[in-house]
Amino acid sequence: MGVVANRIQTPGVGGVAALAEPDALSALVNLVGADLAACNRSIVARMDSPVALIPQLAAHIVAAGGKRLRPLLTLAAAQMCGYAGVRHVHLAACVEFIHTATLLHDDVVDESLLRRGLSSANAVFGNKASVLVGDFLFARAFQLMVEDGSLKVLGILSHAAATIAEGEVLQLVTQNDLSTSEQRYLDVVRGKTAALFAAACQVGAVVADRPSDEEMALAEYGTNLGMAFQLVDDALDYAADQLTLGKTVGDDFREGKITLPVLAAYQAGDAEAREFWVRTIEASSQTDADLDRAMLLMQRSGAICTTLARAARFADAAKGALSVFPDSPIRRALADVADYTVSRVS
Amino acid sequence: MGVVANRIQTPGVGGVAALAEPDALSALVNLVGADLAACNRSIVARMDSPVALIPQLAAHIVAAGGKRLRPLLTLAAAQMCGYAGVRHVHLAACVEFIHTATLLHDDVVDESLLRRGLSSANAVFGNKASVLVGDFLFARAFQLMVEDGSLKVLGILSHAAATIAEGEVLQLVTQNDLSTSEQRYLDVVRGKTAALFAAACQVGAVVADRPSDEEMALAEYGTNLGMAFQLVDDALDYAADQLTLGKTVGDDFREGKITLPVLAAYQAGDAEAREFWVRTIEASSQTDADLDRAMLLMQRSGAICTTLARAARFADAAKGALSVFPDSPIRRALADVADYTVSRVS
Repeated sequence: MGVVANRIQTPGVGGVAALAEPDALSALVNLVGADLAACNRSIVARMDSPVALIPQLAAHIVAAGGKRLRPLLTLAAAQMCGYAGVRHVHLAACVEFIHTATLLHDDVVDESLLRRGLSSANAVFGNKASVLVGDFLFARAFQLMVEDGSLKVLGILSHAAATIAEGEVLQLVTQNDLSTSEQRYLDVVRGKTAALFAAACQVGAVVADRPSDEEMALAEYGTNLGMAFQLVDDALDYAADQLTLGKTVGDDFREGKITLPVLAAYQAGDAEAREFWVRTIEASSQTDADLDRAMLLMQRSGAICTTLARAARFADAAKGALSVFPDSPIRRALADVADYTVSRVS
Repeated sequence: MGVVANRIQTPGVGGVAALAEPDALSALVNLVGADLAACNRSIVARMDSPVALIPQLAAHIVAAGGKRLRPLLTLAAAQMCGYAGVRHVHLAACVEFIHTATLLHDDVVDESLLRRGLSSANAVFGNKASVLVGDFLFARAFQLMVEDGSLKVLGILSHAAATIAEGEVLQLVTQNDLSTSEQRYLDVVRGKTAALFAAACQVGAVVADRPSDEEMALAEYGTNLGMAFQLVDDALDYAADQLTLGKTVGDDFREGKITLPVLAAYQAGDAEAREFWVRTIEASSQTDADLDRAMLLMQRSGAICTTLARAARFADAAKGALSVFPDSPIRRALADVADYTVSRVS
């Protein structure tokens, strides 16, 4: 399991990687353990439907485990804000439903064959069912929010849902286009990934009825954590070992997805390297040997290091945003999760 | 344009078809004209996004016109309830966004080539974009509802959205299965079509703050209207002229969709006819000549008449539900729309 960690040289920007806590996520899980168990029960109970295929398919992806990172953020943020009720448990389930819906729709879109190490719902159940069960989970998330009864929470999560869709469409528009700017790539990531991280965190402050500076600080933590998370994900697509990550290496490459590693490798490349990227990414003309060559070019050009360094800066910003909260075990755990996000290659 | 009307013998159950008003929809449009214009402006304004592909694709299906039947119902119901504000205009736009999102996702699902006489968004923009823009419109609908600020409306429409998805998944499960009961088929229709009709109508009473018997009466009107609408749609798939309806005849047949016409023709058929339906619908083995034969078997077995008679009974129930409201031009227009729904073959 340490293979990839050895293969990638994580950058030492701000000492982030050096401080990385391999089991930061476990520490967070331990701190919100009872809430997470309750959230998992809520998820299983509320994805039920008289139409049996819905819980069957949803279970394939929801109950298959996953890290539950987004609902964990809601639970942890609420705890850090001193919240003592149960609303955060159900809202964390909403966050996971929205995430799962986007995964199901992303599977249709991306034709990826592996997700979390299992064959994707799409591969098993087909495109139709994935789209429709995604729609069900999305609608169910809003039903849960209505039961919770906070228009503010509904506003935050409906805005996040619209922003996610915008990010996904923008990603589609930039596909195969090497002239995409880094700024535009970051806009895609901000939409498709960071928006839900931000909303998941912000909701924790809202249920605790905390002042707006704490709410905004949590949203900023979530945004930066989401950016770091996605950048590392994009780097791992050219570096991770399939067994380690449960994700197919080279998915992004095969789809001609424009990510920071690709932009960095293209910009740093010589004429021959650029020709390679134009052929494989822009013209979508790839042979079996091309992924290995892409990974080699990434290493040589420093594109992976560049991407991870950028991710580390976002992780630092995430940690910085936590400074409005007093020191506590949960704050330390959230800070460690930011480091973990950047170092989660082992 | 009268070709299909001549081809199909509409049944005289309850005199529904005989009373049919060909331009009942125009009458309704005239009564709520200013509100509909405002609703169309709201639709165009709120489907905008900095991601240009979103309004482009959405315009293809939203702004392409369509009958705007569902938002019309919200506007008319609100007017019948004496509502004098502007909330119904924006909520009617929400209803249309939810409808459009399901159309976009249904296009992905059904691979239908024509929708409202234009090539489908899916055929023009691809599956990916259709799924994601559908997601955007769905999220945007919830943002609009949050702006409206009524948790009750949010509850009604989020419940409808979940029910639509359940109906669509149930339809998927029954596909190619001739042992599907009529009851199960009706459950599919209740979910995929009637739920949004019901919600669209009910919302009109909610904004006008009317007592629950009026709210329930409007929901019942909408449910029955939606049932009638879908049954006629299912009949037209085996009878309509493509130019007349802007819908490809035979879509359902080619997909092996289980609809009442198919169930009725199968049940009324002799051994040879049953063999035909098993081969074409259950085994999905079809030749070019099979659609004509299917349409012939439908006519001979009386399956189209059976379906339209069933639709007429739903239309009658829809009209009956309006009896709690005093007579008025808008109530008469809504009653005529129920008749129009059954007779809209000319």
